[in-house]
Amino acid sequence: MWATDAPYLATCRGEVGPTPPVWFMRQAGRSLPEYRARKGTLNILDALRDPALVAELTLQPVRRLGVDAAILYSDIVAPVAAIGFGVEIRSGVGPVVERPFRHESDLDRLRPLVPEEDCPWQADAVRLLAAELEVPLIGFAGAPFTVASYLVEGGPSREQVRTRTLLRARPDLWAALLDRLADLALASLRSQVEAGAAAVQLFDSWAGSLSAPTYRRHVMPASRKVLTGLADLGVPRTHFGVGTGELLGAMADAGADVVGVDWRVPLDEAAERAPGKVLQGNLDPTALLAGPDVLETEVKAVLEAGRAAPAHVFNLGHGVLPEADPDVLARVVELVRAG
Amino acid sequence: MWATDAPYLATCRGEVGPTPPVWFMRQAGRSLPEYRARKGTLNILDALRDPALVAELTLQPVRRLGVDAAILYSDIVAPVAAIGFGVEIRSGVGPVVERPFRHESDLDRLRPLVPEEDCPWQADAVRLLAAELEVPLIGFAGAPFTVASYLVEGGPSREQVRTRTLLRARPDLWAALLDRLADLALASLRSQVEAGAAAVQLFDSWAGSLSAPTYRRHVMPASRKVLTGLADLGVPRTHFGVGTGELLGAMADAGADVVGVDWRVPLDEAAERAPGKVLQGNLDPTALLAGPDVLETEVKAVLEAGRAAPAHVFNLGHGVLPEADPDVLARVVELVRAG
Repeated sequence: MWATDAPYLATCRGEVGPTPPVWFMRQAGRSLPEYRARKGTLNILDALRDPALVAELTLQPVRRLGVDAAILYSDIVAPVAAIGFGVEIRSGVGPVVERPFRHESDLDRLRPLVPEEDCPWQADAVRLLAAELEVPLIGFAGAPFTVASYLVEGGPSREQVRTRTLLRARPDLWAALLDRLADLALASLRSQVEAGAAAVQLFDSWAGSLSAPTYRRHVMPASRKVLTGLADLGVPRTHFGVGTGELLGAMADAGADVVGVDWRVPLDEAAERAPGKVLQGNLDPTALLAGPDVLETEVKAVLEAGRAAPAHVFNLGHGVLPEADPDVLARVVELVRAG
Repeated sequence: MWATDAPYLATCRGEVGPTPPVWFMRQAGRSLPEYRARKGTLNILDALRDPALVAELTLQPVRRLGVDAAILYSDIVAPVAAIGFGVEIRSGVGPVVERPFRHESDLDRLRPLVPEEDCPWQADAVRLLAAELEVPLIGFAGAPFTVASYLVEGGPSREQVRTRTLLRARPDLWAALLDRLADLALASLRSQVEAGAAAVQLFDSWAGSLSAPTYRRHVMPASRKVLTGLADLGVPRTHFGVGTGELLGAMADAGADVVGVDWRVPLDEAAERAPGKVLQGNLDPTALLAGPDVLETEVKAVLEAGRAAPAHVFNLGHGVLPEADPDVLARVVELVRAG
């Protein structure tokens, strides 16, 4: 079990330590040989039903890299899959939805999640990890907009055209959809925290396809429902998206303690857009592929810009790329610790 | 032939008329039944070799919609294809490069473009159009970064990972690549203007995957070379990208007269980021799919926000979607003209 004053948790509360804590989005993933060996060709939605496997995959990067936090190995469509919406994850493609969300009647396919019945394996994995880990465990959920985009598009898409159309054309139906997805994310995250997770991160990976006015009107209420619905649990809440430079202020306003920033906006600029918030990020993931000198220069630039925020959790601006070398990830940890 | 004081040209020069001129990116395209009928299954790179066909496809939306400008039917990889780099356009995929750009030796595959020898059909099409059109013809070229991304990735990609890696890891090689691509775009655009085009637009569709510091260092010099290299021709130059909210100031500084804005940044906000520049945009293309009331509301909001700019060319924030109804496009023109 981790300490309540672990560097990651203290930093999320706004306390500034000697150097920023560091973890990586997708730190448990294809870049690690032990991950590829252990997961094999098992589908992720099947892997999630095995608490010992989930615990092992979650622990692997902590052991290898010595990062300051673990994040529960999961997927943003896990809750909708658990209630039987009909979604699978295809290798090399991503989530694919058998019958996309189109009509009012599809709302009936989104019943509430009862974690202890629908996905008991998730809390079991969290309990295993809480017993084993010496650094805090971050709970994981997809934000309503991003999950909705998969349900509406039927799969991954470049610019979420059907989703952006639906929210304009049918704001009532859209709001009902997002509200159900907010309930799912909230139930999942509450269950993770009740089982022992020390923090949460809400992933709104594709919110960057929206303008700020559209986000505030059509998305923020649902994300706020998730984030504020966790307030009584007293755990730090991180709100992350990609290409969300325009939305950082709104994402902060939605009830986040920590705002995740992708690589497009330097952290000193982000600090002005989300005033008073702890920031997380934001090394360009391709800096890990560009050689040691570039890496060192860019890590230092992120550390320097991060000083403009009240406190800074070091991370990449998006997930670790599959082609990243684990030794280079370890080098990033070393550079961050060197300050 | 058009008048030199045509509304589109006057607006690009900063003169404000009674209502903004309007045209649409990808107005010649799959949304028009006459386009589908005339182009059939012909590959676009083959279609471009037929000046009469290019002229016809360019004219179709002007006839049907009565827009204030035509844009030469072309593709951003046309110049690299014309010098034999080995690129094809696959239906439903986009540009695919046989041997991607990897090493110094690949620079040899990017010789200068001699338009009258390599693609005489392009100037022929422009001449046909200059004789026929009553509204100005806009010349077309892909910006160095976006064209480079196809050459480096080997095809379309979500986040240009290899490209972002190359520019960091090999800034020298990257700069040489962009400089060659700048020369290609410049040669193509000069030839289009010399054959009669009244304006140009430089498409940097994927520049939005970069931070502003990275853009300014690794991309802007090449785009500036193209735009400033046209200065002596005295035609309005529009500089457009998607997801480039962070880059609008830099894109303006690169030598543009008009800055194109995607749907993510309201035009009044964009006017602050690119002060003094004429703005083009930026109706969300999905507004055309969302019903007449939403359309009217959103067109009016764009017109209103556009008043914050010195002058405003109405357009979508990106290309017309293939599923857009031409009658709805016509309705947009009507709404813009109603002011």
